[in-house]
Amino acid sequence: MASEKSIYTYEGLTGWRSLRPLRLFRGMYYDVKRRLPYYPSDIYDAFTYRTIASIIRMYFVNVLPAIAYTLDMYRRTGQFFGINESLFSSAMAAMIFSIFAAQPLTIVGITGLISLFNYTIFDIVTRYEPAIYANFMCWTAIWGAIFHWIVAVCNLCDYMRYVTDFSSESFGMYVGIIYLIKGVEELVNEFSEVDRTAGFMSCMIAILYFLTVYSLELLGKSTVFKPMIRTILADYAYVFATIFWVGFSHIPGNLKAANISRVPISKAFYPTQPRGWLIHFWELDVKWVFAALPFGFLLMLLFYYDHNVSSLTAQARQFPLKKPAGFHWDFFLLGITTFLAGITGVPMPNGLVPQAPVHTDSLTNYQTELDIDSTAEGEGAEIRRPVIKPVNVVEQRVSHFVMGLGIIGTMTGPLLIVLHTMPAAVFAGVFFTVGWGSVGGNGIIKKAIFLLLEDRFVARDEPLRIVKRRKITLWIASQVFGVAACVAISQTIAAIGFPVLIIALIPWRVWIIPKWFSQEELDVLDDLTANNTAVLESMSGPPKFPGERLTHMEDINLQQRHTENQKGAERQRAADIHR
Amino acid sequence: MASEKSIYTYEGLTGWRSLRPLRLFRGMYYDVKRRLPYYPSDIYDAFTYRTIASIIRMYFVNVLPAIAYTLDMYRRTGQFFGINESLFSSAMAAMIFSIFAAQPLTIVGITGLISLFNYTIFDIVTRYEPAIYANFMCWTAIWGAIFHWIVAVCNLCDYMRYVTDFSSESFGMYVGIIYLIKGVEELVNEFSEVDRTAGFMSCMIAILYFLTVYSLELLGKSTVFKPMIRTILADYAYVFATIFWVGFSHIPGNLKAANISRVPISKAFYPTQPRGWLIHFWELDVKWVFAALPFGFLLMLLFYYDHNVSSLTAQARQFPLKKPAGFHWDFFLLGITTFLAGITGVPMPNGLVPQAPVHTDSLTNYQTELDIDSTAEGEGAEIRRPVIKPVNVVEQRVSHFVMGLGIIGTMTGPLLIVLHTMPAAVFAGVFFTVGWGSVGGNGIIKKAIFLLLEDRFVARDEPLRIVKRRKITLWIASQVFGVAACVAISQTIAAIGFPVLIIALIPWRVWIIPKWFSQEELDVLDDLTANNTAVLESMSGPPKFPGERLTHMEDINLQQRHTENQKGAERQRAADIHR
Repeated sequence: MASEKSIYTYEGLTGWRSLRPLRLFRGMYYDVKRRLPYYPSDIYDAFTYRTIASIIRMYFVNVLPAIAYTLDMYRRTGQFFGINESLFSSAMAAMIFSIFAAQPLTIVGITGLISLFNYTIFDIVTRYEPAIYANFMCWTAIWGAIFHWIVAVCNLCDYMRYVTDFSSESFGMYVGIIYLIKGVEELVNEFSEVDRTAGFMSCMIAILYFLTVYSLELLGKSTVFKPMIRTILADYAYVFATIFWVGFSHIPGNLKAANISRVPISKAFYPTQPRGWLIHFWELDVKWVFAALPFGFLLMLLFYYDHNVSSLTAQARQFPLKKPAGFHWDFFLLGITTFLAGITGVPMPNGLVPQAPVHTDSLTNYQTELDIDSTAEGEGAEIRRPVIKPVNVVEQRVSHFVMGLGIIGTMTGPLLIVLHTMPAAVFAGVFFTVGWGSVGGNGIIKKAIFLLLEDRFVARDEPLRIVKRRKITLWIASQVFGVAACVAISQTIAAIGFPVLIIALIPWRVWIIPKWFSQEELDVLDDLTANNTAVLESMSGPPKFPGERLTHMEDINLQQRHTENQKGAERQRAADIHR
Repeated sequence: MASEKSIYTYEGLTGWRSLRPLRLFRGMYYDVKRRLPYYPSDIYDAFTYRTIASIIRMYFVNVLPAIAYTLDMYRRTGQFFGINESLFSSAMAAMIFSIFAAQPLTIVGITGLISLFNYTIFDIVTRYEPAIYANFMCWTAIWGAIFHWIVAVCNLCDYMRYVTDFSSESFGMYVGIIYLIKGVEELVNEFSEVDRTAGFMSCMIAILYFLTVYSLELLGKSTVFKPMIRTILADYAYVFATIFWVGFSHIPGNLKAANISRVPISKAFYPTQPRGWLIHFWELDVKWVFAALPFGFLLMLLFYYDHNVSSLTAQARQFPLKKPAGFHWDFFLLGITTFLAGITGVPMPNGLVPQAPVHTDSLTNYQTELDIDSTAEGEGAEIRRPVIKPVNVVEQRVSHFVMGLGIIGTMTGPLLIVLHTMPAAVFAGVFFTVGWGSVGGNGIIKKAIFLLLEDRFVARDEPLRIVKRRKITLWIASQVFGVAACVAISQTIAAIGFPVLIIALIPWRVWIIPKWFSQEELDVLDDLTANNTAVLESMSGPPKFPGERLTHMEDINLQQRHTENQKGAERQRAADIHR
């Protein structure tokens, strides 16, 4: 539908015209040009039930982990970042991205990694001068914003097309593990800050919360009940679980008396600390201003990977998307939110890795098809399996926007009091559920399970069979090494360097991995994370790997194609572990 | 292989010869005659690995719930029945039944129902004269033993052949629910007897214990790992879980300090109360001796159903058994153990409903066969399913005997101290696991799930489809009504009457149910619990239902036959919920 001239590409260009950094604003220009015509439909397409289900589900899936991380950040940054800061940041990001983003499907909010980033800087800064933390964070954000704008303007998001499942699976696993660790830390905190009784009760609630969401989602993909009831169960699993277990923790008697800790709140619309919303960044010594520069660069590296991968997974090929992406434009917007977050002293929002695809999933109309296979056990014997197929995605900006309004509502006094009724234990449960969602269905786990399976039960047309088991092990080991390195560094003061490790996975995949694996093996083991044509359009087309032919999307990742054929689409649920 | 003359039947007999109660000892005589030739093979058949796995698994599955019930009985009978009493009773029963029983597969031990029976009598007796409890229980047992012997000698066990899944499923459900309730009570006790911290920690351990066994058994029937490893995981799921969670509860720090309650023990080989092992039953007033008579009758009713159904399920058709049964002889033996238990003041042992089939299961060599069904998704596409088929059962008496020796070993001082390390919370976990094993795979649940399934995913050859949904609902409702009545009465002082309710399910099925359901419907919905030819031989052949043709085993229970064909044998695991 796009004419030759309107395609964003560097193919066929020579000289300075082929050098991305010199073609300022080119990517952003095409992003807007491509997406703008869809703006009206982004609004009127929203009038369907899916949008309502999506708003409710995303509100919970976005706000609950954000608050959960804030509990952690609050304790570890000398109570600088509180609930009000996190809600403000989430609401601001939702408003800006839902209205202005080229791809409003990408949910932006508070991640575990920014929490890690913020309290590591706190640990570092307080070694020298505790008082400057607010201003120092502000300057980190300002520098970070500047780097964001440079990257966006110089079209550097194009390089995200080199990201393959090799690094994005590792990253997903890393993020999932961080979630699980935070869940445990939240429970440990109950033991150390409250007492043993609160600790054990919190463990119990967190485990049962996880089991509740997991079971409801499992029911949702079973074949009991009518499709509509199944959809409701799965859509609102978090809602049901949260309401039930919050209520449970308030039952008078032993439960109420255990006195477990609840979300700490402060006065509505005011910062947690006695300060104004504007950080006095001009009061920082010049030496500290420049000391913040490398941290700003690290922040940009983190968001470059984290935000763009979120966006990629929200637009993965499994979703039948029709509207175009816009990575350069969105990354520029992210610079703006980073800047605003910096000068108001709230945590910097960015794309949420486990949650971004959940948004698209919540907007997808799935159809459960019937697959009948006759079996060998005699006449009429058959197996009837459900195969879930995505029909279409309600692509619009309203769900993101209304969810943002919901967050603003949460900032008001009465709703803050509702928040205060929620025990930290429920958030530990949220960490376990979201974290497991990112770990359990991960490609690393799937390949590991393949290795453990008794061979005779593996379908003969399983593509992984053509790769030597030794090679699959090497592949998994490489990924696990990357994950382990990231997790390990996150537990130290060197944690601030983890974005470098994550980014390093891309060149490793591009230059080192092809020396260990043949082209045929890589075709099975790996896949472009940006595997959607609409996505690649915004990144100047498919990547060219040195010496590889991984350029035609039709050839690649036989394994994923195979799974989709056999079992239908993969949904974004904690209970979705596929074998 | 048996000549005409050696077959136990009343077919073709007329006059007084056809009246069972007048043909004294006839059933017992045939039982011995049929089984005795197999005695040598009952010993030498035992020399295989299966026997070892069975001994270890059954030791845990028998002793853990026995101790668990004793914790309950100990508190509720004024500390009359303690650990030593339960172990003594279990060991005695194991010795007598493994050496003398016609069917040594039927595991005999302490059940939840005898615990309920004993403490209900305690509640009744202490209203009048607390001091006589020991003697009164002794006389209850003596009368009970006499009724046992009458039943056995008069061949009345023959009527057990009228037991169908209608009542045995209801009974299994009832027993499972009692287990689950006991688990909860055990946890509630931690809150009320120790404190809140111990309570919450116990809840956590019980839940995790259940999940551990459940997951290990689920792994055992998956297709990961080699078949041998899967077998080990499933065989020793209780062992692994028990060792792990007992150890966990002793980890220094918050866990150790929570001070949860552990198994109370007393001096080895002595009764818990300061008394000799012989109850001075001659010291009871004559009026109380006769007051004990109806209780003895109720005890016999309970054991008549409970023990014989245990024995039936241990010999269900799904197990390829070769050696004959002997219900009359075994019921006579049960009279002897009841008598011995009475005069020594220990709980009366009888057949264990959830555990009896586990013994046979643990002795069955299963083979995981491969079933390949090609699917519609293109060339080479296929589903590979494991279908578990029983190959043979190691029928012998050694596993039962050595397990008994293990229990005797447990009675010694050092091993009692090991017992004392076990937290009550682990037993709550055992209750949940064993109880769920009896509830989850129950036919009532299976039919209920069938009703909930979305119709298009139900295989067309599913036999339940030929019965109207309204009729299936009526069927389930009848069963649930029976279960609910039993559970409700168990919570009151009228609990003592529950054996009457259970027995009443048999005539209800024989005379009332056929008025509501057609023959074709009953063929699908119901099945003889005594569905094994070797079993029916001991009960004078298949039953004759009034106006029904439910006499030829080949015609009946299409549904179960269907499930076995499709999914292979059902195993006796907590994780076995079939759809």
